[in-house]
Amino acid sequence: MSENKVLPKTLPGFMELLPNEQLLFNEIKEKIQKTYEKFGFLPLDTPIIESAEVLLAKAGGETEKQIYRFNKGESDLALRFDLTVPLAKYVTENYNELCFPFRRYQIGKVYRGEKAQRGRYREFYQCDIDIIGENELSLLNDAELPSVIYNVFKELGFGEFTICINNRKILNGLFDALGLKDNSVDILRIIDKIDKIGKEEVVKEIGELGVFSDKINTIMNFIGITGNVSETIKSLRDLNITNELFETGVNELEEVSKNIKLFGVPEQNYKIDLTIARGLDYYTGTVYETFLNEYRSLGSVCSGGRYDNLAEYYTDRKLPGVGVSIGLTRLFFQLNDKKIIEAGNRSISKALIISMVDDLSKSIEVATELRNSGINCQVYTDQGKIKKQFNYANRNNIPYVIVIGEDEIANNVVSLKNMESGEQVTISLEEAINILK
Amino acid sequence: MSENKVLPKTLPGFMELLPNEQLLFNEIKEKIQKTYEKFGFLPLDTPIIESAEVLLAKAGGETEKQIYRFNKGESDLALRFDLTVPLAKYVTENYNELCFPFRRYQIGKVYRGEKAQRGRYREFYQCDIDIIGENELSLLNDAELPSVIYNVFKELGFGEFTICINNRKILNGLFDALGLKDNSVDILRIIDKIDKIGKEEVVKEIGELGVFSDKINTIMNFIGITGNVSETIKSLRDLNITNELFETGVNELEEVSKNIKLFGVPEQNYKIDLTIARGLDYYTGTVYETFLNEYRSLGSVCSGGRYDNLAEYYTDRKLPGVGVSIGLTRLFFQLNDKKIIEAGNRSISKALIISMVDDLSKSIEVATELRNSGINCQVYTDQGKIKKQFNYANRNNIPYVIVIGEDEIANNVVSLKNMESGEQVTISLEEAINILK
Repeated sequence: MSENKVLPKTLPGFMELLPNEQLLFNEIKEKIQKTYEKFGFLPLDTPIIESAEVLLAKAGGETEKQIYRFNKGESDLALRFDLTVPLAKYVTENYNELCFPFRRYQIGKVYRGEKAQRGRYREFYQCDIDIIGENELSLLNDAELPSVIYNVFKELGFGEFTICINNRKILNGLFDALGLKDNSVDILRIIDKIDKIGKEEVVKEIGELGVFSDKINTIMNFIGITGNVSETIKSLRDLNITNELFETGVNELEEVSKNIKLFGVPEQNYKIDLTIARGLDYYTGTVYETFLNEYRSLGSVCSGGRYDNLAEYYTDRKLPGVGVSIGLTRLFFQLNDKKIIEAGNRSISKALIISMVDDLSKSIEVATELRNSGINCQVYTDQGKIKKQFNYANRNNIPYVIVIGEDEIANNVVSLKNMESGEQVTISLEEAINILK
Repeated sequence: MSENKVLPKTLPGFMELLPNEQLLFNEIKEKIQKTYEKFGFLPLDTPIIESAEVLLAKAGGETEKQIYRFNKGESDLALRFDLTVPLAKYVTENYNELCFPFRRYQIGKVYRGEKAQRGRYREFYQCDIDIIGENELSLLNDAELPSVIYNVFKELGFGEFTICINNRKILNGLFDALGLKDNSVDILRIIDKIDKIGKEEVVKEIGELGVFSDKINTIMNFIGITGNVSETIKSLRDLNITNELFETGVNELEEVSKNIKLFGVPEQNYKIDLTIARGLDYYTGTVYETFLNEYRSLGSVCSGGRYDNLAEYYTDRKLPGVGVSIGLTRLFFQLNDKKIIEAGNRSISKALIISMVDDLSKSIEVATELRNSGINCQVYTDQGKIKKQFNYANRNNIPYVIVIGEDEIANNVVSLKNMESGEQVTISLEEAINILK
């Protein structure tokens, strides 16, 4: 290579796929989109660049450190780091044009300058749905979202999965009742590690925060609760925690859990999990996490929850909402890495048309007929030996080759070769179209 | 509004649509995508952020001024300003994995910090297709692209359109033969204005560059050439310009024009236009522009051409290519602005299901059946008076409402109301699904 060339390198933390992988990625993205649309969520496509003031109205901590922020002329700009802040902006800005409850989906790229490491992306797709109410929003919406998640993951076919549900009011009420509000962040972080470090270590670490052992006992009893929905709700009430927030949380969780069934989610696909919290600032009621049963180690593949106020940093209007999000880029990486999905020999064209004669008229005619029948195809348009042309079909995973030669033209037929089996038949174009369909 | 609120404002030059407009935008985008796929172009989705060194390897002038460029940590980054440079990077980086001719499409946002003005966007979608060859690429590809353009715009249905074709070698050869190479940029810029300023003014302005009148005469004869393909080619040869580049250009243009017909583009949808040039640096052969016959003032709605070397700033490999691009965001704005397209009462849901009873089981059952039949729908999940619920359907442009009350449940039927005609019928769910389909 000449010395004055620039090395063409994609940045670390940015996913760029080979064509067959891209086809698989697009298939998954489209299944998510179509399912969101089936449930009547409206599409949005907000800008990737926003004013930094707007994007960071509420942010802080990690978000602020990770954000891509820069000046252009006199403007202080930033790249969106999620799709929720842009939604808050959108709903406030277009309030008078929208009808509530406003149901929208957005599938788009977001940006976070995280430390680069395997499987962590700085540019990644989020696939979000949210339902935004005006002043209030029925708990039925909290029960409907799991049915959207259920339909998405059933459609995606990554195996059995479980939607875990909790209510933030229960956790907040519990800590409130125990006088542990100030420690709640730390305690939740410790509880979160229970799968890794075990029960005893959790007790020890919470103790190190200066929490008395009777309170630790209550916490451990709380997170130890198991059983089906009715059993769990009963156990929660049996804890005899007299705190309004806690009681409201238990009532909400009971109502939502019962209605989830109503929305057609089979019982084996959802359960109450009292340990999930989804961060502390944002969610105020129902929270969701979703796990692939056979690949629990992937972490939650679809999460979200209920919030009291979507846009309090922009407006005094009360806009409660509930939503969930799929982090598609990371999920795709993980599934691909674990070979749960495989790009394999995907191809965009169903057939390659090879002409044995110089005049391409017949080949192009055949291609047009195929396309009119909804079959993606291409005519080989570069000079080259027949072998090279078949090789092109092979390397591009194109499953069928149609050969047009003098005999085919004379007899008004086509030769159709199945590239996998090697079988070749000479048939009418109509028959070929039926096979290709 | 409280004083500590941030004003939620979308940046100027960034398109953000209302839901019904977004639905229309997505329909158009999808039609373009599906047509590209019908012709066997493979999808790519490259990052929006690239290393500034990679993106600017070749750029200069306006591009460099307009680019969004910034530092993150120690990295010098930039947002892509087109989809061609990322393609050059991609093809060089993945050369060994790709099979040539490599046909790819990419539909994505690009960024240019242009002066903000009505109808000019800083973030906009480009919809690109390119065919990249290895060492060489048959001229048949130049003839095939107009058939893709033809199918896209036929599918989009924006009225009659004309694909204008030229060859850069003809222009370059002409200026070369006239010894006007150094003036060619200025002369082409003047010629470009002919529709606006008229023939006489063009002659005058070229004269002001110090070009002798016999040469101006040749130029004016050249751009005055009209007629069908054979007539135009004949007139070009009759100019008796002895220049190898010119002659090669005429031969290429003749071959491409003849083959376009072969590829099924009707004669009224394409013509030779000797004045189109598409900038000077990039294209080296065939160039295309596409105009809507009734809205010529919109400018070209799909442009592109042939280039000798896709990635000469990254690699010594010779990668000739040919491609076209649709600037979708600007096109959408223009068509919408001129009311050539209208978002109207588009809606994502075909039906809203309203329950007159507290138990939503039947409503949700109906919704599930509809979705299984491919019908997008939603159950009204917020408490509210029936009137409010019908109003919700109206404001969201949902064309049908299904009412489930005690009678409907008892008789195993649904009440289906056509929101436009006001007509309401009580029928079986099956019949309702047939109507909704």
